[in-house]
Amino acid sequence: MDIRQVQKQLAKFAATRDWDRFHSPKNLCMALVGEVGELTEHFQWLTEAQSRQLGADRKRAVGEEIADVLIYTIRLADKLGIDVERAVRRKMKINAKKYPATRARTVLGD
Amino acid sequence: MDIRQVQKQLAKFAATRDWDRFHSPKNLCMALVGEVGELTEHFQWLTEAQSRQLGADRKRAVGEEIADVLIYTIRLADKLGIDVERAVRRKMKINAKKYPATRARTVLGD
Amino acid sequence: MDIRQVQKQLAKFAATRDWDRFHSPKNLCMALVGEVGELTEHFQWLTEAQSRQLGADRKRAVGEEIADVLIYTIRLADKLGIDVERAVRRKMKINAKKYPATRARTVLGD
Amino acid sequence: MDIRQVQKQLAKFAATRDWDRFHSPKNLCMALVGEVGELTEHFQWLTEAQSRQLGADRKRAVGEEIADVLIYTIRLADKLGIDVERAVRRKMKINAKKYPATRARTVLGD
Repeated sequence: MDIRQVQKQLAKFAATRDWDRFHSPKNLCMALVGEVGELTEHFQWLTEAQSRQLGADRKRAVGEEIADVLIYTIRLADKLGIDVERAVRRKMKINAKKYPATRARTVLGD
Repeated sequence: MDIRQVQKQLAKFAATRDWDRFHSPKNLCMALVGEVGELTEHFQWLTEAQSRQLGADRKRAVGEEIADVLIYTIRLADKLGIDVERAVRRKMKINAKKYPATRARTVLGD
Repeated sequence: MDIRQVQKQLAKFAATRDWDRFHSPKNLCMALVGEVGELTEHFQWLTEAQSRQLGADRKRAVGEEIADVLIYTIRLADKLGIDVERAVRRKMKINAKKYPATRARTVLGD
Repeated sequence: MDIRQVQKQLAKFAATRDWDRFHSPKNLCMALVGEVGELTEHFQWLTEAQSRQLGADRKRAVGEEIADVLIYTIRLADKLGIDVERAVRRKMKINAKKYPATRARTVLGD
């Protein structure tokens, strides 16, 4: 998936519908929150083990929420002029330094 | 950005650190919530107009949060065996039907 | 409203339905996230000015989401053995020190 | 805890600091999201069992986040003119109808 192409499609989609007036970064951030809330509702009463083995229907529904999360995140980055690829690559480097592999079995949250 | 390649890198990163035991979809969903919370904190007291014109420092910090959101979302999809590209493409088609361009100036939230 | 009484009612409500097995603090936290997501969806496309002047229907719906947020938060505190009143009073004192009134017109987020 | 008294204290606290211009319901909702994100970070890598047995330090930190969540929720309700007590009582009645106790062992999420 070429994210820049998705950004362009989303931008065109919004422009055609005259949605740019709604799509301030502040509003898009809130829309993202709403989608993450819907995603969370799928997992809230599941055990961790159950969450690793979703049935087909649930998996499809979760896939739709994940798509919504990605769409709003990519759209938000586009409106802010943030280069998503560069940001992700940079963050992965930061994480590699922060959690060196040599400290095997690093415990998260410590 | 090739999302499948990012997925592989994230999977390797987690495996090397023995993090798979923590990375249940339920837990990854919660980690995503935490990152979206941090992203939201950047925008909470800004007006919409201010959110459209972030300064360089704020923009860099927001870019880092957006990267975190994407990383956890992509990782979550990978652990669930969800094809992100396909999910996004399908959702964009659903949205195109739901909000036809011919209904110009569709009001969101109605 | 006596929060301790609400806690008791919610505990009884859950016990009668055999929900305690679902009501781990981790799960209740996720349920809270879901409700906050639903609350956010009401505000995402509104301007700040519009959010200050909700119509009657929207206000009723928002009131219901606020109730859900409070119910899960109070239930979470109960399951953790956290004294809500004491926690709120302590936090208000911390905030009073952190943001002294003498620094008039403190700008939030600085 | 008398929620109306807390509302008055929070209103006075904000007024003294000239914060009402920031405290639109939209912004308060986002501030609530940020606090719920911080709360979630405490639980994201814990098992459900671990979340039921927090250590003293973690419990104190979680209590502070819960207080923040309540403070912003109560403040939001106040700015909207929503009677929190009435909203909670009404919602508990709705839930009692929605999940009758006679349907013992109701499975959540179904």
